[in-house]
Amino acid sequence: MKIKYTLLKNEKDTKARYGTLQTNYGTFETPMFMPVGTLANVKTLSPEELKEMHSAVVLSNTYHLWLRPGADVVEKAGGLHTFMHYDGPILTDSGGFQVFSLAKNKEKDIVEEGVHFKNHLDGSPLFLTPELSIEIQNKLDSDIAMSFDECIPYPASYEYAKKSTDRTLRWAKRGKDVHKNERQSLFGIVQGGEYTDLRHYSAKETVKMDFDGYSIGGTSVGEGKEVMYKMVEDGILYLPEDKPRYLMGVGDPLDIIEGVERGVDMFDCVLPTRIARHGNAFTRQGKINLRNLKFKEDFTPLEEGCDCYACKHYTKAYIRHLITSNETFGGRLLSIHNIRFLIKITEELREAIKTDTYLSYKTDFIEKYTKK
Amino acid sequence: MKIKYTLLKNEKDTKARYGTLQTNYGTFETPMFMPVGTLANVKTLSPEELKEMHSAVVLSNTYHLWLRPGADVVEKAGGLHTFMHYDGPILTDSGGFQVFSLAKNKEKDIVEEGVHFKNHLDGSPLFLTPELSIEIQNKLDSDIAMSFDECIPYPASYEYAKKSTDRTLRWAKRGKDVHKNERQSLFGIVQGGEYTDLRHYSAKETVKMDFDGYSIGGTSVGEGKEVMYKMVEDGILYLPEDKPRYLMGVGDPLDIIEGVERGVDMFDCVLPTRIARHGNAFTRQGKINLRNLKFKEDFTPLEEGCDCYACKHYTKAYIRHLITSNETFGGRLLSIHNIRFLIKITEELREAIKTDTYLSYKTDFIEKYTKK
Repeated sequence: MKIKYTLLKNEKDTKARYGTLQTNYGTFETPMFMPVGTLANVKTLSPEELKEMHSAVVLSNTYHLWLRPGADVVEKAGGLHTFMHYDGPILTDSGGFQVFSLAKNKEKDIVEEGVHFKNHLDGSPLFLTPELSIEIQNKLDSDIAMSFDECIPYPASYEYAKKSTDRTLRWAKRGKDVHKNERQSLFGIVQGGEYTDLRHYSAKETVKMDFDGYSIGGTSVGEGKEVMYKMVEDGILYLPEDKPRYLMGVGDPLDIIEGVERGVDMFDCVLPTRIARHGNAFTRQGKINLRNLKFKEDFTPLEEGCDCYACKHYTKAYIRHLITSNETFGGRLLSIHNIRFLIKITEELREAIKTDTYLSYKTDFIEKYTKK
Repeated sequence: MKIKYTLLKNEKDTKARYGTLQTNYGTFETPMFMPVGTLANVKTLSPEELKEMHSAVVLSNTYHLWLRPGADVVEKAGGLHTFMHYDGPILTDSGGFQVFSLAKNKEKDIVEEGVHFKNHLDGSPLFLTPELSIEIQNKLDSDIAMSFDECIPYPASYEYAKKSTDRTLRWAKRGKDVHKNERQSLFGIVQGGEYTDLRHYSAKETVKMDFDGYSIGGTSVGEGKEVMYKMVEDGILYLPEDKPRYLMGVGDPLDIIEGVERGVDMFDCVLPTRIARHGNAFTRQGKINLRNLKFKEDFTPLEEGCDCYACKHYTKAYIRHLITSNETFGGRLLSIHNIRFLIKITEELREAIKTDTYLSYKTDFIEKYTKK
């Protein structure tokens, strides 16, 4: 079954919207944050733990799974859900962003047919095309697949951005033409770089192809917050109301709040698990690093009132001890807390939309989060 | 409350015995295997997962906790149980084995008062005495503490072994004299190296001091299986029937079976978690390494019929993928399986004792386990 988005409420002062996403594995509320399981596992965590923190969709990376263990292995296993024991909805990206972020410029050759680049593990040559990306995702059998796109660097000349945007549109069409998996939805990706007219153009042309949802791509490439927010505004303006909008790779708490305010429904990011591995925790008062000596005898939870497993049973002193002793259970506890933190924020944003209190919620949150 | 061991049945053909151990956190059956949480966490696992695999006592290391986070921090946290969120019985070792295994010979000076050696983390000088070991364990507030002993190297001269055995007896007495924690039991440790008469002597003299239980120490120091089994026989002969016997640091499946046959009640070892980190799993057909290419498309569990979380939900192919991709969730799944494997063996050994079928169980197990 294809996903179905239902818009239930527009917030009065902003473009924020509350809705539901019907999937093969149940119906979930939006806006939502999606944890990232790069290699078919959200690092250190079990699927049961994800459910306990009210996680809905989980993202996994096509490029990484293509290399390890290979799409055929996942297909033979019965698809990603069976392989990783996750009976919730799974979204796969297209590999486009990994081509951008993992391959160095000199080792990448973008041609009309696809992209020649090097395997980041062993340097061997790889060639990824829109068709192959879809074929891999069909085999992975995720619930939501992404079109293969080029992530435009920032800054980029208008000429290059235009040329790339057009190519991404042709790639989207090619991918859609070969998309076979009936139970898998396919999203188009809005590109256009930093140029308003190209974002509008990209959105309009992508929408003409009638995808099951739309992603905003090409952000988080060094453009800075204000430029990113503008990219989101420009990219979203011509998207249909009855389809979900997904801002790819964004997961900073403040960016989620700004994104939802501009009409975004879905977010994903490795941030909560990545900062966890480095000993960091999100709190309402900003990020804290548990390596800090001041937590050595701090026998309070990461955050008072937090309902996550880590906060219910463990203290900062214990987690600090684990992190400074390189015990991976410390990263597991911080991952649980950080993912739950972002999911909790989206729950609160949904409530703020329903009660038309978005801007006051935002002001309160930012004041606490950025106060030092 | 001190622990209380109740002998319920002697097996007819062997010295294997079935009993119960009453602790501050409930009563548990013996023989039992105790997972090791070196730094107040059984690596990668939650206390809830330990309970799910029917784990009873967990071991933690005095030496390691003394260095990180420090006994005072654990004491201020409310003791180890609160600190690590484990409401089951905890056993702490004395640090004696770590002095032996982590400090190089030249950097170690054993005197009557205690041992001068170097911190394995930063090389700073440390001095551990029988009194300090007990004081630290009192602060950690484990349920079962160990006397501070010298682990005699193998081989050792009779003269050295005799001298060391006498010193360990004096240290046991000194530790017992300062032991204050009313709810903490204290075990004496039988040493004596490879010498039968010294083992008998050590046991008899230690028993005279009337400890709450007795450990067999000084094994797993390179002496080989047959010598170790003899050390156990010699060490156990003069131990009282109404106190638990604990074979320290032993956790190979075959060694557990041999140990129980000789009358041991308790075992601990880092083996199941350590081999897990290297991609190994125990199975009834011997150890397997999940890195092996033959598991790439093996969509069966680690072991058919195993009731552990890993076997219920995941395949060898998936775990192999995680291990070869350096995803720590792979080590977590293997740790769960390996610990459950050893605990399951002790469950089966208890059944074999109750039904007087020890030797046939042993023969069957070894035949399958060692057949290639």
